[in-house]
Amino acid sequence: MERLSGLDSTFLYLETPSQLLHVCGLIVLDVSTVPGGYNFPAFKTELTARVRSMPGFRRKLFDSALNLDHPAWVEDTQFDIDRHVHRVAVPAPGGRAELADLCGHIASQQMDRTIPLWEMWVIEGLDDGSVAIMSKMHHANVDGVTGASMMAQLCGLTPDAPRPEPDPDQPQLGRANTLDLAVGGLIGFAGRPLKMAKVLPSGVALLPRWIRRARRGEAMPAPFTAPRTSLNGAITGHRNIAYSQLDLGKVKLVKDAFGVKVNDVVMATVAGALRRYLADRDELPDSSLVAMVPVSVHDTSDRPGTNQISGMFTQLGTQIADPVERLNETNVHNTMVKSHNASLGASLLQDWSQFAAPAAFGGAMRVYSNLKLAEHHPVVHNLVVSNVPGPPVPLYFLGARISAMYPLGPIFHGAGLNVTVMSMDGKLNVGLVSCRELAPQLWDLADAFGPALEELVKVARAKTRKRTRAANPK
Amino acid sequence: MERLSGLDSTFLYLETPSQLLHVCGLIVLDVSTVPGGYNFPAFKTELTARVRSMPGFRRKLFDSALNLDHPAWVEDTQFDIDRHVHRVAVPAPGGRAELADLCGHIASQQMDRTIPLWEMWVIEGLDDGSVAIMSKMHHANVDGVTGASMMAQLCGLTPDAPRPEPDPDQPQLGRANTLDLAVGGLIGFAGRPLKMAKVLPSGVALLPRWIRRARRGEAMPAPFTAPRTSLNGAITGHRNIAYSQLDLGKVKLVKDAFGVKVNDVVMATVAGALRRYLADRDELPDSSLVAMVPVSVHDTSDRPGTNQISGMFTQLGTQIADPVERLNETNVHNTMVKSHNASLGASLLQDWSQFAAPAAFGGAMRVYSNLKLAEHHPVVHNLVVSNVPGPPVPLYFLGARISAMYPLGPIFHGAGLNVTVMSMDGKLNVGLVSCRELAPQLWDLADAFGPALEELVKVARAKTRKRTRAANPK
Repeated sequence: MERLSGLDSTFLYLETPSQLLHVCGLIVLDVSTVPGGYNFPAFKTELTARVRSMPGFRRKLFDSALNLDHPAWVEDTQFDIDRHVHRVAVPAPGGRAELADLCGHIASQQMDRTIPLWEMWVIEGLDDGSVAIMSKMHHANVDGVTGASMMAQLCGLTPDAPRPEPDPDQPQLGRANTLDLAVGGLIGFAGRPLKMAKVLPSGVALLPRWIRRARRGEAMPAPFTAPRTSLNGAITGHRNIAYSQLDLGKVKLVKDAFGVKVNDVVMATVAGALRRYLADRDELPDSSLVAMVPVSVHDTSDRPGTNQISGMFTQLGTQIADPVERLNETNVHNTMVKSHNASLGASLLQDWSQFAAPAAFGGAMRVYSNLKLAEHHPVVHNLVVSNVPGPPVPLYFLGARISAMYPLGPIFHGAGLNVTVMSMDGKLNVGLVSCRELAPQLWDLADAFGPALEELVKVARAKTRKRTRAANPK
Repeated sequence: MERLSGLDSTFLYLETPSQLLHVCGLIVLDVSTVPGGYNFPAFKTELTARVRSMPGFRRKLFDSALNLDHPAWVEDTQFDIDRHVHRVAVPAPGGRAELADLCGHIASQQMDRTIPLWEMWVIEGLDDGSVAIMSKMHHANVDGVTGASMMAQLCGLTPDAPRPEPDPDQPQLGRANTLDLAVGGLIGFAGRPLKMAKVLPSGVALLPRWIRRARRGEAMPAPFTAPRTSLNGAITGHRNIAYSQLDLGKVKLVKDAFGVKVNDVVMATVAGALRRYLADRDELPDSSLVAMVPVSVHDTSDRPGTNQISGMFTQLGTQIADPVERLNETNVHNTMVKSHNASLGASLLQDWSQFAAPAAFGGAMRVYSNLKLAEHHPVVHNLVVSNVPGPPVPLYFLGARISAMYPLGPIFHGAGLNVTVMSMDGKLNVGLVSCRELAPQLWDLADAFGPALEELVKVARAKTRKRTRAANPK
């Protein structure tokens, strides 16, 4: 039995039927590489064998009415793969529209909290013979880094990579024990005022420091200053998804030409795509959209729990028409924001959420949700943008080469769009999730990513040619 | 705004992630009859037009923290068909196993209570070119009779039946009003002791009367006297389904040969199938299985609400090997049970549940579910058996001839099987739902229905032949 951290539990408390806090991933598989060919029963058998040796796939929530602290993880002694792996197909003609529609339905369903918090929907019937997997994990169970590492454990660098050996040192979670949970919860609860007293001063001291930095022009944009767009309102539980695959070589060409980072090019491309999407709708704001960017603190935080994340606010420069100017602005801004964020302390979000109380948090969230308060206060941030580096080499999922892996993150009231980008095997995979009511034409946005990158590639090529000509004059 | 009845609300309060209280239906459509041929967009457009004129498809729940009584129905002013109608396909080869698996997944997902409580999953990719519809409605929104009537309104007697005219006298539900709900709730709550005082004596007086009848051998089996089988335990949220289609002509042949009712033949067939299934597992009990049979009181109750049902307990005679003896026993028993049930009063269940308190009922159900209490007390009943008469003629669903309609009812802790039978167009459709952990081989039971009926047909034919020979001696 292992108690959840405050931040991990917060993803349970803040969940409502509209604000679903699972993370999904759409993996497209080239099954022609599977030794012996693909068939579902063999696929499930192989998956079962691997999942058995991975505790993150077998732990479930345990709580009791007497527990005053956060719930705990326990081993699911009745673990049954058939409750997690489902087989389905896309209707004809089996193209991207049908696939995205089906995945939208899957992403809109709440998860069953009485079993381990993951699902995989194996999707057949695609027009190009691929098989897709829509994976679904609760955010209480994974963050970006641990989720990627769980998926990585299911993958190999060759089609016939052997199963990972079960780790003999792996800690055993053990069974549920109501008394242990209640007594431990009482002790944790009683210690809260003391611990809160330690965290409170640093949190309160933040604000004047933030304001001082903002005056010097060195701060992240303060929350509640983002412009309102059609993406910003109360969300429903209805999700739609879309995606785009870009050439990582082109991203690197731009990076080299302008001496910036891959992340700067990614952010400038996101901004360029959003510019097009909003301009086509006659609603491009004069001021920049503000993105919330989750930051992994796996290396810098000493706090327990699965979710080792913090967030920073960043301006996307969507108001800047010139792509190079936007890219440079992004580079300068990203460097500044990172330094400001570091000054806030890696464990800030974790420390604060440790005090989250199930009833108060959940109740407040339901009221917030029911009254659609997100539509009545200024916009905190416009969207979530996340950039996750993946492996630069081909990866095989149970023998099938992964031709694309689109991460699909959660959305929150007030910000109905999540853009998560993942590099892998020479490609940049862009996964988009939105509330269908706020962005019914999400493919328009996905399809704006290609032109947004090309715009940068064009000027980068021109610059490189000029430079080459200057270095080798005829 | 219209307040839910106690019985309707009880289906909300008693729902947990394991005890899902929606009712499903699997409809198989011969789309070759659709004028102009089947295509999904046209199908959805037609469905949307019909649903617009039917209030049961557009009402959603409304509640507030200040409301002390049951929640209310309000018009969903943001009604969006895309949150209710989903398109999906079965994987290859598209047979009954793949279809049932997919429908099991759909039945295992909790419904979103923030929108009208129905879903239709249009399922393509079936090997015989049929299209299937898995419909899902919450029991708070429909009972057997109203559910059937809602589906019937979507159907016609010809492929090109016109859309039903919207009823101008149809009452308008109106919008949500927190104050009205709170004040009305306070009045209802304050009046409870008085109303309870009226119901209490008749409820308490029941028991001695029940016991007196039992002594005379004229009572329904008392609850808690059923034998325990593998079907009886705490259920999970994992559903599987199976089905069987029988020839109604054969049922009538048996009915006529033995001078019993269609319902008696149906119950004797259910019993025969259960006998085979349990005997094959070496667990056929010496005493009869007890079925809970929902009874419609639409004609006899004057109470408000959608759910106009009561329930009766009946012995299936599963311990009787001889099919004719079992049939006769069923006939005698059914007549007796109906008379006992009538003496209990049609509105008993409705009156009692009017006092159900959300917190107490929901909390008690969670404790019951978490502690798996269903495994520790005697079995109340072994399964739910329901027999719903449908139309004797062909029916067309948006132009497509319905070739089968399998009703799939809810299951409860302690009784992990629901068998619902529906006659239609010369066929008897048998829909089975179980908790997958309690009955993983549900097709074995479904496949026992054919032989169970044949057993009765064989003796009926022999009897008819003998009678004919006696009447026409050579």
